[in-house]
Amino acid sequence: MKNVIVVTGASSGFGALASRALASSGHIVYAGMRDTKGRNAPQVLQAQEYAAKNSADLRAAELDVQSDKSVEAGIGKIIADNGRLDVVVHNAGHMVFGPAEAFTPEQLAELYDINVLSTQRVNRAALPQLRKQRRGLVVWVSSSSTAGGTPPYLAPYFAAKAAMDALAVVYARELSRWGIETSIIVPGAFTGGTNHFAHARSRGDKARAAEYEAGPYTGFADQVLKGFSSIVPPNADVSAVADAIVKVVDTPFGKRPFRVHIDPTQDGAEVGNAVLDRIRAELLRRIGLGDLLTPRDLAQ
Amino acid sequence: MKNVIVVTGASSGFGALASRALASSGHIVYAGMRDTKGRNAPQVLQAQEYAAKNSADLRAAELDVQSDKSVEAGIGKIIADNGRLDVVVHNAGHMVFGPAEAFTPEQLAELYDINVLSTQRVNRAALPQLRKQRRGLVVWVSSSSTAGGTPPYLAPYFAAKAAMDALAVVYARELSRWGIETSIIVPGAFTGGTNHFAHARSRGDKARAAEYEAGPYTGFADQVLKGFSSIVPPNADVSAVADAIVKVVDTPFGKRPFRVHIDPTQDGAEVGNAVLDRIRAELLRRIGLGDLLTPRDLAQ
Repeated sequence: MKNVIVVTGASSGFGALASRALASSGHIVYAGMRDTKGRNAPQVLQAQEYAAKNSADLRAAELDVQSDKSVEAGIGKIIADNGRLDVVVHNAGHMVFGPAEAFTPEQLAELYDINVLSTQRVNRAALPQLRKQRRGLVVWVSSSSTAGGTPPYLAPYFAAKAAMDALAVVYARELSRWGIETSIIVPGAFTGGTNHFAHARSRGDKARAAEYEAGPYTGFADQVLKGFSSIVPPNADVSAVADAIVKVVDTPFGKRPFRVHIDPTQDGAEVGNAVLDRIRAELLRRIGLGDLLTPRDLAQ
Repeated sequence: MKNVIVVTGASSGFGALASRALASSGHIVYAGMRDTKGRNAPQVLQAQEYAAKNSADLRAAELDVQSDKSVEAGIGKIIADNGRLDVVVHNAGHMVFGPAEAFTPEQLAELYDINVLSTQRVNRAALPQLRKQRRGLVVWVSSSSTAGGTPPYLAPYFAAKAAMDALAVVYARELSRWGIETSIIVPGAFTGGTNHFAHARSRGDKARAAEYEAGPYTGFADQVLKGFSSIVPPNADVSAVADAIVKVVDTPFGKRPFRVHIDPTQDGAEVGNAVLDRIRAELLRRIGLGDLLTPRDLAQ
């Protein structure tokens, strides 16, 4: 079945790979990105070239997930053009690196906006349509840090991803009775193959960071990055995340996994989430809401 | 030993109880709250009365954790008056209730500000002093939802607390080499004894919430609250949280527990955190940073 799919943050990284792989799998895919006429014009061209070369239905869509207006317009247009929207992939995200204390509250707020409020904007624009259809799929690209190891100097990012994962879990229960299914993709650290780490070098308030460097944390940034790289296997392949998303989408309704881990470093998230998701399911059963764990099949 | 302690959100609930219990245990305690000359003037008076009656050193302090300026001034004054600051208790927090989709991005941002950015403001004002002392304790009042059951209709709060807990864990590693210890207090649901649930009844965007009520989630708000209440034992005593904070503070440096659970509902957080904290510790050892797990003893 051909699904109408929107992927956020699809100008690069997991998002670009996933939107191409989904289009190649036969779906109508909107690769959401901001600034399609400016900074990301080359990425729009790349998407068009990919579509032509692979006879795939891949369309770049203007979608600045930090703007209510842009998200409402972008999602609205997809729905208007297709009469439906089947799958939302929450992928947009950004990382920062440095001592937690060195980030201003404003910088933490900005990172929460990019990683978490972004999903809320897209949900509020898209879910009314999915609820009306009584059928849909929401895919969240979480992070193994939410239930696995959390190295230092990445606190603002880990905080935001922990929040995003918590939001995803509760949304799943609040959408299941509408016939909307949820799958959470949990990638581990991929230090190569995306711009995630390369773009993360901002350290917030430089004076504060310098105090750590001059104190007992001399050389610590490099220690953390070296330690991190040492546990990522050299053959870690970012396309595994895109493949996992395609597999989830192509699985029939009601059979999709609640979580999929793609974690070459084996940082423990698979173990942590097995425990946490079990505990959460038990609580729902205990308070008489166990039905929320399975999406209702309401569509004909 | 007499510690100089600041407790945030101390006008009511856990914060008010903890600041009184700490003062009664012989410490110099600043009960931080906003609007000490207005809305919270009665709470200031109560603190004064408690201090007089119990010969305890309890002082209300103007501290609006949503304002950089107020936090800088409030913490700055405590340090100036005492020449030191030994313990920070991050307790301020707020809960909202309703379907996740019904909250605007602005409402989510506001809740993140109260629950998470608040701690960042206090940390940025207080930690330079604690680092200078090469000794201190940071206590975080987290939530069992971060590793236990998460009932529906509390998504924005659970997201914020998950972020706060993630921040606490990473801060712990980035402060241990400075001789600063971390303890995370994990309260379960206390539906009585604090204003937490009573004040949480805002439901965001009312039209959106009404769609859930008119759809497959009719009567759901009451179902969730009833289910929740059914698992809180009638004798659940909120003062247990305050007692746990006093016990942590009164434990000698280096011997304090990383986490303490006070969860009468037994929602699973104790199990979840045992797994998560173990996984996180293993990762640090694996990348050669195991020393971060123990605070250095640098003070004489």
